Order: sequence, then structure tokens, then C-alpha cells
Amino acid sequence: MLMPFRSIALYLFTALLLTARAEDVTRARDLGVPFEGVPGPVNAITDVAGVMVGHSTLIHGSGEVVIGEGPVRTGVTAILPRGRDFSQLVAAGRAVINGTGEMTGSWLIDETGYFGGPIMLTGTTSVGMVHHATTRWIRDQLPPSQWFSGLIPVVAETLDIHLNDVWGFHVKPEHVFEALDSASAGRVAEGNVGGGTGMIAYAFKGGIGTASRRIAVGDDTYTVGVLLQANHGKRENLKIAGVPVGREIPDMMPSRDSAEAEKNSLVIILATDAPLTPTQLRRLARRAALGVGRGGSIGGYMSGELALAFSTGNTISIGQQQQTLTSPTAWHGEALNGLFKAAIQATEEALANALVAAETMTGANNLTVHALPEERLQSVLRRYNRLDEAASAPSSP
Amino acid sequence: MLMPFRSIALYLFTALLLTARAEDVTRARDLGVPFEGVPGPVNAITDVAGVMVGHSTLIHGSGEVVIGEGPVRTGVTAILPRGRDFSQLVAAGRAVINGTGEMTGSWLIDETGYFGGPIMLTGTTSVGMVHHATTRWIRDQLPPSQWFSGLIPVVAETLDIHLNDVWGFHVKPEHVFEALDSASAGRVAEGNVGGGTGMIAYAFKGGIGTASRRIAVGDDTYTVGVLLQANHGKRENLKIAGVPVGREIPDMMPSRDSAEAEKNSLVIILATDAPLTPTQLRRLARRAALGVGRGGSIGGYMSGELALAFSTGNTISIGQQQQTLTSPTAWHGEALNGLFKAAIQATEEALANALVAAETMTGANNLTVHALPEERLQSVLRRYNRLDEAASAPSSP
Amino acid sequence: MLMPFRSIALYLFTALLLTARAEDVTRARDLGVPFEGVPGPVNAITDVAGVMVGHSTLIHGSGEVVIGEGPVRTGVTAILPRGRDFSQLVAAGRAVINGTGEMTGSWLIDETGYFGGPIMLTGTTSVGMVHHATTRWIRDQLPPSQWFSGLIPVVAETLDIHLNDVWGFHVKPEHVFEALDSASAGRVAEGNVGGGTGMIAYAFKGGIGTASRRIAVGDDTYTVGVLLQANHGKRENLKIAGVPVGREIPDMMPSRDSAEAEKNSLVIILATDAPLTPTQLRRLARRAALGVGRGGSIGGYMSGELALAFSTGNTISIGQQQQTLTSPTAWHGEALNGLFKAAIQATEEALANALVAAETMTGANNLTVHALPEERLQSVLRRYNRLDEAASAPSSP
Amino acid sequence: MLMPFRSIALYLFTALLLTARAEDVTRARDLGVPFEGVPGPVNAITDVAGVMVGHSTLIHGSGEVVIGEGPVRTGVTAILPRGRDFSQLVAAGRAVINGTGEMTGSWLIDETGYFGGPIMLTGTTSVGMVHHATTRWIRDQLPPSQWFSGLIPVVAETLDIHLNDVWGFHVKPEHVFEALDSASAGRVAEGNVGGGTGMIAYAFKGGIGTASRRIAVGDDTYTVGVLLQANHGKRENLKIAGVPVGREIPDMMPSRDSAEAEKNSLVIILATDAPLTPTQLRRLARRAALGVGRGGSIGGYMSGELALAFSTGNTISIGQQQQTLTSPTAWHGEALNGLFKAAIQATEEALANALVAAETMTGANNLTVHALPEERLQSVLRRYNRLDEAASAPSSP
Repeated sequence: MLMPFRSIALYLFTALLLTARAEDVTRARDLGVPFEGVPGPVNAITDVAGVMVGHSTLIHGSGEVVIGEGPVRTGVTAILPRGRDFSQLVAAGRAVINGTGEMTGSWLIDETGYFGGPIMLTGTTSVGMVHHATTRWIRDQLPPSQWFSGLIPVVAETLDIHLNDVWGFHVKPEHVFEALDSASAGRVAEGNVGGGTGMIAYAFKGGIGTASRRIAVGDDTYTVGVLLQANHGKRENLKIAGVPVGREIPDMMPSRDSAEAEKNSLVIILATDAPLTPTQLRRLARRAALGVGRGGSIGGYMSGELALAFSTGNTISIGQQQQTLTSPTAWHGEALNGLFKAAIQATEEALANALVAAETMTGANNLTVHALPEERLQSVLRRYNRLDEAASAPSSP
Repeated sequence: MLMPFRSIALYLFTALLLTARAEDVTRARDLGVPFEGVPGPVNAITDVAGVMVGHSTLIHGSGEVVIGEGPVRTGVTAILPRGRDFSQLVAAGRAVINGTGEMTGSWLIDETGYFGGPIMLTGTTSVGMVHHATTRWIRDQLPPSQWFSGLIPVVAETLDIHLNDVWGFHVKPEHVFEALDSASAGRVAEGNVGGGTGMIAYAFKGGIGTASRRIAVGDDTYTVGVLLQANHGKRENLKIAGVPVGREIPDMMPSRDSAEAEKNSLVIILATDAPLTPTQLRRLARRAALGVGRGGSIGGYMSGELALAFSTGNTISIGQQQQTLTSPTAWHGEALNGLFKAAIQATEEALANALVAAETMTGANNLTVHALPEERLQSVLRRYNRLDEAASAPSSP
Repeated sequence: MLMPFRSIALYLFTALLLTARAEDVTRARDLGVPFEGVPGPVNAITDVAGVMVGHSTLIHGSGEVVIGEGPVRTGVTAILPRGRDFSQLVAAGRAVINGTGEMTGSWLIDETGYFGGPIMLTGTTSVGMVHHATTRWIRDQLPPSQWFSGLIPVVAETLDIHLNDVWGFHVKPEHVFEALDSASAGRVAEGNVGGGTGMIAYAFKGGIGTASRRIAVGDDTYTVGVLLQANHGKRENLKIAGVPVGREIPDMMPSRDSAEAEKNSLVIILATDAPLTPTQLRRLARRAALGVGRGGSIGGYMSGELALAFSTGNTISIGQQQQTLTSPTAWHGEALNGLFKAAIQATEEALANALVAAETMTGANNLTVHALPEERLQSVLRRYNRLDEAASAPSSP
Repeated sequence: MLMPFRSIALYLFTALLLTARAEDVTRARDLGVPFEGVPGPVNAITDVAGVMVGHSTLIHGSGEVVIGEGPVRTGVTAILPRGRDFSQLVAAGRAVINGTGEMTGSWLIDETGYFGGPIMLTGTTSVGMVHHATTRWIRDQLPPSQWFSGLIPVVAETLDIHLNDVWGFHVKPEHVFEALDSASAGRVAEGNVGGGTGMIAYAFKGGIGTASRRIAVGDDTYTVGVLLQANHGKRENLKIAGVPVGREIPDMMPSRDSAEAEKNSLVIILATDAPLTPTQLRRLARRAALGVGRGGSIGGYMSGELALAFSTGNTISIGQQQQTLTSPTAWHGEALNGLFKAAIQATEEALANALVAAETMTGANNLTVHALPEERLQSVLRRYNRLDEAASAPSSP
């Protein structure tokens, strides 16, 4: 697959930026938040070989909203399950924590258990434009004979209404292409980037978070990666590592009350290289709820909390629709439990990572949403005997 | 609710056109196809009070496909559950016959049992643009305080790939607005219109079809209406009124073989004024499969066959989220059976109406798809003792 | 697996009886009812290699019901997916037409996609006893180490309340063991046998029906078999081969009105040797609705109409939980369509077979339910040009 | 409804016993475990007016298992949604955390959203007998005209294989009647009682636990109650109040390793008097997962973790099938969030209550499973600054 001309320079530039940026960002475990399990090399969904992630981040303007002019605090995140190799569909399964959200492509995934198309995360009012532009992008990636071979845009959303001029429809096709074309393996920028740019979680600044876990099954090692877009939760319910952090930090609330309603959303994407069937991936996706439960969410009545899991180890070739399982291992018993636990642990850490990476933002109508204060988080954890002092050392020089 | 300025003239003009057109069209029962049950006044989904339907039909160009230039045989159909009164959400439930299709908004409908936004039918590659433009249209219909009150675009599709330059993305926002702004009560154009413009069913020309049934429950009368977009089925499987019409008319095939694959789709929208709960509407939607079964469909493996049912008699106000059931009648027992039967009968007739209304079309790459020949249909039905000779008289003057 | 001592004599005797009985029974296609597709050797679910079926039929007493004494018109039908080889679980998927019935084991099948245990069909009030006795039977078939390896009783029911003393609980463990121990390959008794003994369908005598279809996929041949227990439908809705048989034979109604309510039920079991995944088997099960639709059912509001499909070609070993697909063929595309069509056709024929095989029965409180009259059926079909005269010749000597 | 003769004396005696017993039992909050929210008067599912609970507990024998003789450590728990008033069905919805379990009646609840019959919790091999005996019991409670009015046994299970002679089938009809006839309002015995008698959770002794929460909605107060049967979880995963209790108490393991596999189960029953619809009750049931997540469960691959929620405030009369909502309140927005949070909090506390109430048990093959040690629990909580010292005072005199 050749990369479209327009995107090569962009890709190199963005990759550079993202890498630099990612390295600057402190992550939850750097602060001494204790987590279970063993992460992969970059502790991100991209630890699952083949998975690529790209962001397009739109931040400009300030002050009162003038519809169509801004302020703009939004974006698009693209996840390519097999990078730019579109010759195979991946197995997939989905789960509902609270279904008041959108994730296109769901009927097909339920019916066949496979899909190919990019997964796109964005703001609620951009779903249509992102779907449209992604369909165009798919057309441009493939030879005509494969345009209807199962690539479909899976577009999910959370509502960036408090910080962004959502009714101005600022996401344009070029932003969608930017997210898709810049998608890469390796480190993933978190916080105020891509689809997560204008999001709020637990009344702190939210956004994109990611994490991964590795487990051994016999002589093999498998990875589960999670990437989520966090825009959910009331402050009082926030827990990190089991500690009631939200009740311990009741101040630093957004500068307008309305921004704390429990009606926003959370989208969770899980990837694995374990050769799971669609039935098993639905089970894996359902474990996201157990991870979200650890974070204290109550699944607010209008908070769309949706999960999708896919496997790069169980694919169907587009041309011949032959199924390929990358391993003959039967995924049952303790091996499956290992994956379930990994999914829960990675979800829990990705949520914390989103909060730690996001930075204080002032957006639409001068609303300011504060970042989770790192030192106070450490202080609270310490008080509950839950700070990993060794890990936290580097961050408090 | 004021109608936007731009659409008034368009509305009047289109309404005139549609009415004229609808009156010219012969419908299945006019030919003597025997159906069960009692239809409403216009035998259309609009017999359910409040429901409005509008089409935008795009037909231009001919010959070989040049992507982006045509030929164009596509469009958009809009269904407004409560016309232009957006103060209430309607109860809804969905059902899967074969899930290899798209209908946005499904997670929300499953979760809450209510939705408000327009239902839009179009071609597969236009889902994104129709979603985007409908979101804009919703914004323009409502006061800002209600922009996030539950109106969401429910966009469904079937694939018009054989007759239309699907990769040219010819549906633009103005076409979406045209379908929405022209939506009206009363007669509904069928066949090669709106989202059904370029569709093929049972290797005959397909498209939009509609029908309705009235049932008495005690002293009250209730209506079930169906509107569907038919793009499914192999010729050999077609049955009308139980007669194997497809095997009796094996000729008049599309001018290219590829146009007869069983991988297209069928979207079925059911409306009723009976005050059903979301749970009951899911049951009603499931009856669509029994009606589709009568038509001979096997639910081909890539033929997305989806159903959505809604009730104008069970609504929630957007502002206060108070639930309103228009009738205290308990919908159980025989009353529910009456609705189920009505749904099946209306689905069966709407399918036949789509085939009868659609006219022979030549489109992309000079493919010609023939209309179901009316006299041969009558002749076949007569041979199987299934022609209603009295009804068919007017059509053979 | 050794057969338990007590059952050997019983098995031989019953097998003899069943075979004799089966050969006497006229089946729908013998009467000239036209069906599509090619059946297997015995046109029964047992055409899927390995599948065994056994019945226990309880008929005694007459007159008014004295609870606990009778009259008794009930029984149990057992389906063993892999005969008496319990070393493997089979892949499975289920579907709902109308869910007002019971089929135990459903949560497990949904979650894992596999099950091992016998499928048992009986009357509604016998579900508990059949579940209990089947659990005991499973214990007695297996070495202790495998008692919890996934064998679970899948017990489904329809309500034989009109002809049977349902509140007398006449099904005892020995009847359950009889059905299980007598299960065999080959011909399957239909009509008033096993779980179908006291059932009523379309106000004619109903009961057990079965049929099968063979399809070629490349050089291989695969089979789909259906066995159903029919206790559903109003007379007016009955269709056979698309002909409105119910409206043409409005007389011969049961001797009490109450026996015609549309609140009974229909259980459909589909078997195949095609190596389908659980996801694909759910799709296959869903096709049952399309076959049931052909028979005219409206899925009455309290008529539990449930379907379960399993594959003997995709199994998991109990001991090691290794998955075995008996064929590497990818089940997609036209091959899958062939199976879908086979499932619909076999369902349609099995329904007709149940009606044709069942004989007039007088039961509880002297209710008489008539058999579908064979000559009148032929006469009606002939009038609609739907009688296969060649096939019907042998039955009218 | 008159109480059957045989049960009056039994009822009085058992009620006395249960009350005495309940008062002796220390509950989690008595030890100073911190919980959120406000419980009802007895902090049990019976705080929802009308709900009654009864247990039948079978404990006898010791030593090696002789199938059919023991040792016996099992039982039955009955939950009557409206006590002994069977004139109405209650609205209900269910949710799956991990579906590898059994709960009969599920198809009907999914389809209609209502059920009437008792909810029964027991050991896995007793499902059939409990279903059978409960069906008999229903017959005996009602006039014949109502025997098929929607009362169905909802029988759920977890596997008491380690402590009990499960293959001896020790639960007999009389035990089922005892649980049903002794059901009462007020305090509920927890731990080693009823269906929970032989259960193990997190490698400590598990069993029955219950809790409740009250919330204010405007001027009204509503209650959510939870009763669960806990037989799930690996030690290392146990968390209480967010504290990793399982890792802090790695000793006191069962005397055989095999008893710690993550393949047992958890059944969660939620009751409320809030007039929720079936759609909303499904949402409430789904919140159980978020509560279970707080307890650290990973939803082990063969651990059937199922939830069922019902409302005594939304009922349908059996005779006339008229729907009765006890309140006109629209259950949306913050009110719904209050219920969701209450469900999560009550689930979390009921889990802790099960562990705290259960006492060390020695059962089949001399396996000993230890109770969660109360003082060590307090000590661990204190170390993590999570002990409510005031509350815990009474328990350390």
C-alpha cells in the first residue's frame, strides 16, 4: 500500500511531534500510582503489533462561542487495526456499559464478527463528517475491486460541548485524513489530543488515554492494549487505585457548574494479538465494565459508555474470505482469564493515564477545566498507603 | 416550529410533484395482488398520524462510470416520526434479520427505548454525509436549548452500487435538506425515488415501498405503517402472495450478471400510533422478518436486513422528560396480536409495492434493470388462482 | 461410552417400534406438497451424521381431568448432538422469533458458543423434572472427571395444556431416561410422539416434525437438519407452499374454542455438519423465522417461538478444550447462503410434516383436535396449482 | 392468598430462627468497612416493600463423598418479588457480566419485560428439581384460572461442588417448599444459608449477602435492594472498599488447591420500588457489573455472573393485564443516576456482607474453607486508612 502523496510530509512531521510530545508527558505510573500486571514496551494500544494510532488536534480561538467560528477544542483520533495493510478483516466483539452513545458499524460487527475499517474517535457532532471522510479515505487506499470488501468506518464519539463550539462543525475531511495518514506504531500521545481534545472526565480535564498488558500463555506472550476517550464521570465518584481521589480533591472544579453533569461519555477500544473468536472478543469487551467500575463510574444515564475489542490474531482475508488464526492455541481456561484480567488492568490504567496526561484547558465561553493536580494525587495516594514511592521518585525531583 | 425560509417554496413545489407522481403510480393491489387486512386511507406509513416522508432523487448522466461525474442514480428519503414537532421523543425498538448493514443511532435506541431524530434512508456511501447534514438540519430546527435533547440522525442504507457511481459521493447537504424540508403527510412516492432510486430487488428494479394496516381495539382504531427500501433478494426466491413469481419469470434479468448477488440489503421502518412500550416495539420490529419471509427472502449473508419500529403514541417530552402514553389501554393479548399481524401484512404489501412502482432503469456502465412486468405478474397470479380479478380490472382497461 | 444396562433392551425395542412407525407415516411431500431443495436420505435432522433422536410418549386415560390422574397426552423428545459420544462440545447459536418460552442453557450458549448436553423437548410443566432427570442421566454417562465439562441440559417446551393434565406432572425420570436411552440415528417418528404428543398447531393436531436439506459446496456435501415441536398458530393464518390452506379449511376445528388461542409455542432445533462458528450458527438459527414466516405464523404474543442451531463440524474437546473444525473451508459467501436457504426450506417442510404426521387426538376434558385432512389438503393445493401430482400419486392408490 | 397449612408452623419457627440468627451476625459495616450511601432499615433486599426472602439450608454428614449420602452442604433461597400476592407481574430486566451460568425464565423476561414467579437460588445440580418443585408450589398458591398467567420459576445457580455432594441431588421438593413457605419480610440471614450454604468466594467462605440503599427523588424516597449468592473470585483479586484485601491476606487458603479456580459463579438479584420500565431495569441490572468490578472480580471465564433487576413499582395485573405504574414520576435524569449509584453501592456492600457473614466450613472430602478473618480485615483496612473506626468500635469490645 503506497501512502498517499499528500500525507508523507505530514506524517513525518506529525510523527516527530507526537514522539516528542509523548516523551514529555508524565504517565500515571510515573507518579507512583500502583497498577497490577506487566505493560508492553510503550504501555499503549500500539504494543499490539500492527495497530497504529493517529491524531488530528484542533485548538484555536477563545472567548464566547460564535457558532462556526469557535472557540475550537476538538479533533479526531484514528486507530488502524492492521496499520495500512487492509488485506484482512479482524475479528471483533462489542459490549455496552451504557448505550447512550454512537459507534457506527455495530450491526455488521455483531452479525459477522469481523470488520476492517478504521476506528475513529471524535466529538458527537462530527460523527457524520468523519464517517464521510473516512469512507473517502478507504476508497483511496484500496484497489477498486476491494472497495466493498468489508472496510467500514467505525466512528465513535463523546460530546465535547463544554469546551468546544460543537455546532460549528469544525472537523473537516482534511482533519480526518490527517489523523488517518499520520497513524503510526509506537508511542501514543494522550490527554488533550485527537478526539479527546475537548473532553472532561470526573470534572477534571479528560481525553485520550492508553495502556497495555502482556501475559504469558505457555511459551508465548500475548498483549492486550486499550485506548479510550474519557469524557465521563462525576468528581465525587472518581477512584484511582481504589482510593476515593474525587472526594479528597473536591475543589478545582470547572468554572461553570454545568460542565459536571454525568451525561458525557466514554469510548473504550481494546486490541489483542491473541487469536480470539468474535464470541470471545465480546467477552473481552465486556471486561471493560469491570475496569471502569474500578475507576468509580456509575455509568450515568446519558453517559454513553461503549467498548469494542478486536484481534489481530484472528483475521479473514478480504479477497478469498479464508479465516486465518495466527495460532492454534485454544483460547479457553486460564489463558482466557489472563486476557480478561489484562483487559481490566489496562482499562484501569488507561483511564488514569488520560487524567494525568490532560492539561488544564480554557475553551468555549471561557470555561476552564483543570488538570488532575499531580502532587495532590500523590499526596492523597500516600495518605491511603497506595503510593508506589519508588516509581514516583522521578516525578518529584 | 417555523419552517426554514429556504424550504418553503421547495416544499410546495415538491409536494405538488410528489402528489402528482404518486397518483400516477399503480400499486400492487391495483393489479389484483391479494393482500390480507385493511389498509389506511393512503396505504402508506403516513397513515400513522404525524408521520411525514420526503424524498430527494438524483438521476443524471449515463454510460460508463467516471468517479465523481456519474452516472448518478441515488438519493435520500427522510421520515419524520412526528413531522416538524420535535418537542417529544418517540418510543422505539429494533430487530435484526441479517445485520450486515448500517443504521446509526441503534445503541441509543437499545439503551433508552426512545429517539427523536429523523430517520434517513440512502445509499451506503452516503451515510456519513447524510448524518452530517441531518445533524446540521436538526440544529437549525430547534432552539439552542434543545440541541442535545435526544434528536439524533438514524441513518440507514442499502448499496446502490450497480446503477450508481457510489464512489463519487453525489449526495450533498442540499439533497439531505431537500428530503427533510419536503417531508409531508399524505401519499408517498414509491419505486425509483429518494434512497430507493438506484436499488435492485430480486433482480427487478427495486426501491421504496410503503403500505399500512388499520385494526380495531375495542372502540379505538390503530394504524401500523411500513416504509421500506428494497435492494435485496435473488430472482429465484421471489414470492408474491405465496406464488413463486421469481421462478415463473426467470427472464428479464439485469443486463449484467453481477447485479444479482444476494448481498444487497433491505431496510424496514415500522410506525404505529398504538401506545406500545419500547419492549413491545422490539417485538413489532421482529415481525418484519415474518413478512419478509413471505416474500421469499433468505436473508442473504451480506444482505443487511434491518428493522426499526416506533410509536407516536408513547412519547417523552424533550424538555421535561415526562412520559406520555396517548392511551391507557394495556397492550397485551389479542390487541398485540392484531398489531403483529398488521405489521407482517403491511411489510408484505410494501415489498410488492416497491417492485410494482419501480420503473425500468438504465444506469452505471449501461446496466439496465427491468421493472417487474405487470401483465406477466397478473398472468402468473391467475395461473395460481391468486389474482383478485375484481381489483385488477382497473389496471387493464 | 457404554450404554447403561437398563437401556439396552429398551433401546432395541423402541428402535424397532419407531422404525416401524416411521415407515407407516405419510409425509408432506408424499402427498404432493411441493418443496424446494434436496433432502437427505431420511429427510430428518438425523441426516446430520451423529445426531440421534429419541422419544418417550405418554398416552393414557380419557375424560375429565383429575389432576394427577390424567388424561395424559405428553412426553419427552431427546436430541443428542453427537449421539453417545460426549467427548466434544458442539458450536451453537440461538435466535428469538418470540421469546415467551423457555430453553434452558441459553446464557451459556450465548456466552461461550458451545454446549454438549442433550436437547430435550417437552411440555411446559415438565421442564423442571426433565432438567433434573437429564442432569442425572449426564452423570451416569460420563466418568466423574467430566461431569462438569460443559454438558448441560438444554430443555425447551411448548404447552400441552388443552389435551393433557399438565398440572399432574406425569413426566417422571424414567420417561426422560427412555427418550435419552432410545435415541438413535435414522428415521424419526413425527406427529403425536415425544414432546409433541399433546400439541396443537393452527387448530389442527400438531407435534414433532423434521426434515433436512443437502447442499454441495465445491466437492463437498453438507446437510442441514431441522426438528421442531409445533404447538402454535391460528387456523386462519396457516399457509402451506404459499397456499392459504387455513382459510380454505375453516372447519374441523377443535371441539372447544379455547384451544385455538395464539399463545402456544414452537421450538425449532437446527443441526448441520458444516463447520460454522457460533456467530454463523446464530445467523443460521435466525433463518428459522423466515421459514416460519412462510408457514403463515404471526408469532403470537404469548407463543414462544425459539430456535437453536448447532454444528457437529465445529467442536471443542471437553478434556483439553482444543477446538476442532472438521473442515478448513471458510464459510462465507455463497456457501453460507446455501445453508441459509437449506435451513428455511427444511423448517418449512418440517412444519408441514408435523401437521401431516399428527393424527386426530381426543384428550383432556374430551377435547378432540383433528388431524389436517390429507385429501382436502391435496384438493386445496390442486386448486391453487400447487400440487405436485407425480409425488402425490402413491398416496392415493 | 392463604398460606398453605403445612407451612404456617414452619414459617413461624423459621422466622424466629432467622431473626435470631440475623441479629447475631456481624455485618461488614459493623466492622468499620466504609460504604457510600444510605441503607434501608434492615440493609437488605427486603427493604423494598413487599419483597420476601426464605432459605432452606441443608448441612449434614462429613468426610469423603459417597454420592447420594453426602456430605451435604447446600440449600435453596427463595425471593418473592411481591410476597404472597401473585395478582401482579413485576417489570424486570437482566444483564450479563459473564454468561456461563443458568437463570431460567430469561427468554420470557427479555421478550415481555415482566414476570411473576419466585426467584430461586440454589446449587447447579439442583436447578431441575427446584424448577419442578417451584412449578408445583405455584400451582398450589393460585386458583386454577391463574395457573398460566405468567408465574414462572426463575431458577439461578452457582456450583457448590467443593463442599457439597452435588451429584447426590440432595435438594428435594420439601426443601424448595420450605424456602418458599418461610419467605418473609424483614431481616435476611446471610452467609452459609439457603442457596449460599456451600459456596466459596475469593477462596474464603462465601454465600448469601444482601444490602440496600435509599434515595430521595423530590419528596419521595425510593429503595434499591440487592441479594446475591457469591461463589466467585480468586483470592488475589479481592478488594474491599478499594483496598487489596486479597493480596494482604494470602494465607488461610482452602485446604485443597482445586477449590480456588475462577470458575464458580455469582448471581445478583436487584429489587426496587421505583417505577422503572423493563428497559430501565435492564440498565439497572447492568450496573451490577460496576459494583462487582469494585470488588475486584475479573469475571472468570467459567464464572457465571448474572444479574436480574425487578420493580415492584411497575406491575401488570395477571387477570386483566392492565399496567400499573405506582408513580407518575418520569424516571430519567438525575433520579435514574441516583438509582444506578444505589445499585452499585448495594452490590458492593452485599458482596462484603456475604464474606463477613459466612463462617468457616468443613465439607466434602474434608475440605475446610475459612471465613474472612474479621480482625485481620480491620487491620488491613486501617493500614490503608480505610477503616471507619467509629463504626468498628462495637465489634471490638
